[in-house]
Amino acid sequence: MTHEFARIETYFAPLAGEAGLGLKDDAAVFAPPPGREMVITTDQMLEGVHFLENDDPALIARKLLRRNLSDLAAMGAEPLGYLLTMALPVDQPEDWIARFAKGLETDQNIFNIKLFGGDSSSSKHGIALTATLLGTVAPGMALRRNGAKPGDGIWVTGTVGDAALGLEKRRGHLAGSHNYLVSRSMLPNPRLGLDLAGIATAAIDISDGLVQDLGHLARGAELSAVIRADMVPASPEAAALGEAFLEMRLTGGDDYELILAVPPGNGEALKEACGTLTVTRIGVFQPGEGVHVLSSSETVLEFKSAGWSHF
Amino acid sequence: MTHEFARIETYFAPLAGEAGLGLKDDAAVFAPPPGREMVITTDQMLEGVHFLENDDPALIARKLLRRNLSDLAAMGAEPLGYLLTMALPVDQPEDWIARFAKGLETDQNIFNIKLFGGDSSSSKHGIALTATLLGTVAPGMALRRNGAKPGDGIWVTGTVGDAALGLEKRRGHLAGSHNYLVSRSMLPNPRLGLDLAGIATAAIDISDGLVQDLGHLARGAELSAVIRADMVPASPEAAALGEAFLEMRLTGGDDYELILAVPPGNGEALKEACGTLTVTRIGVFQPGEGVHVLSSSETVLEFKSAGWSHF
Repeated sequence: MTHEFARIETYFAPLAGEAGLGLKDDAAVFAPPPGREMVITTDQMLEGVHFLENDDPALIARKLLRRNLSDLAAMGAEPLGYLLTMALPVDQPEDWIARFAKGLETDQNIFNIKLFGGDSSSSKHGIALTATLLGTVAPGMALRRNGAKPGDGIWVTGTVGDAALGLEKRRGHLAGSHNYLVSRSMLPNPRLGLDLAGIATAAIDISDGLVQDLGHLARGAELSAVIRADMVPASPEAAALGEAFLEMRLTGGDDYELILAVPPGNGEALKEACGTLTVTRIGVFQPGEGVHVLSSSETVLEFKSAGWSHF
Repeated sequence: MTHEFARIETYFAPLAGEAGLGLKDDAAVFAPPPGREMVITTDQMLEGVHFLENDDPALIARKLLRRNLSDLAAMGAEPLGYLLTMALPVDQPEDWIARFAKGLETDQNIFNIKLFGGDSSSSKHGIALTATLLGTVAPGMALRRNGAKPGDGIWVTGTVGDAALGLEKRRGHLAGSHNYLVSRSMLPNPRLGLDLAGIATAAIDISDGLVQDLGHLARGAELSAVIRADMVPASPEAAALGEAFLEMRLTGGDDYELILAVPPGNGEALKEACGTLTVTRIGVFQPGEGVHVLSSSETVLEFKSAGWSHF
């Protein structure tokens, strides 16, 4: 326990905000910003499932925060702070912890969040991490998954499929360097700070793949989602890999771009709200059910990927 | 993933409160109760560290909630809701999950809390669970660890050391049945609902053992804590085991009773606030440092346990 307290004092207390009470109390205390609703989300990352033993600890820390921050972004929320639980093998190198904490610090500064509290434990088998992110939103303005209306356009931010291709490269299945794709799979960019209230009617972030996550929006609204595969934006690096990777791009996860439902008249307002971030209309919500991916000649494309048939 | 969604729908969506949005969204949304501060805490339980493979899943669920609820109790907070992350082996029996969810439901009803959200994942090695509990407190009235003043009495709720003795029994190291002690180690009773604001100046719950947790209060206040071993309340079952178990009672963890700092004039008010729950004065905070345990003849007792010398 002595060692645990020293570790908290050295690496984590400096990351604590006022709410964290120096990480010396049983819980964090904070006054919610007046006139705001609270948004809260949690996500875990496990060694062997979400990362590998030799992955850079700073990137693991930042990805843990960013996966959660992306959930806040999908709700239209502004981040406030977070709690962290860590289960580490007893012989976890001190240097790993120092680098992990450095990664937290980097992203705390980028996203203006503070550590509110947490818990540490020993682990018998590998590393287990959980972050719980708190954010705020104007009352009634949280973006939900179930708000799409028939005729709303389906839009996506940024480019789709880079992370899946980057993972393919990291697994040794792609020739060439593909640094951009790899970086996209290692460190997502949560799409925070877009003022989408009154512009979008529904939102979700792409964590499980465009098709599957779009399916959540369609089911939430009891509508069908029809998209054109050739309209789904690809980065130059992804496009260069050609049509053979289309299915991987559209069904692969971890992009952390947003899928948005946007009424027909709001396209320009959406582009303005997104500023330098590209946003692309890829289809439309219609009466019916399921996700339908069309080719440029409007024939229906069928994918083999697990999960697809479910929608 | 299909399986994951079905599992959430079957077992966890029925546990969700309004804030949880049916567990269908990226995050939970809630309006903080007007005029209250928020209190938030998180705690994890891992197979092989905090519980064993064959432990009752309902009790694991309830202990996970109660460890966190005890942290809220130590801050004087009223519980509101929680988030849950679960990492389970892919072949985790459906029955285990059903019983785990039933345990959550039982304690949700007892403590009037709802599930706000969470995350589930597969695990390569055993079960990892994290709960994050949200509560509220009147502004400025959160009980801290650092509020004790010289002359404040040291009080504890309930009886101390039962859980450590119960664990000793579960490990096969005690003859006799000791059902009460075992039950105390399996299912703690968080000391919620005591209106201690204005009565206690500091509080902590006993998770790591009376001596160690009292040390946090002493260090927080930059004082020494002097207690009399014979005044530390023992249950009849613990007392029957005799003096040989004194050190185990005073240094063993998992009791989840509260240690309170209470100014001399507030003893009666404290007893009234605790109602039918016994509360016992065991010592006093004084200038100095460290935790000092005295015998009935006021000689200093030394313990071998790890952590003791640190204070």
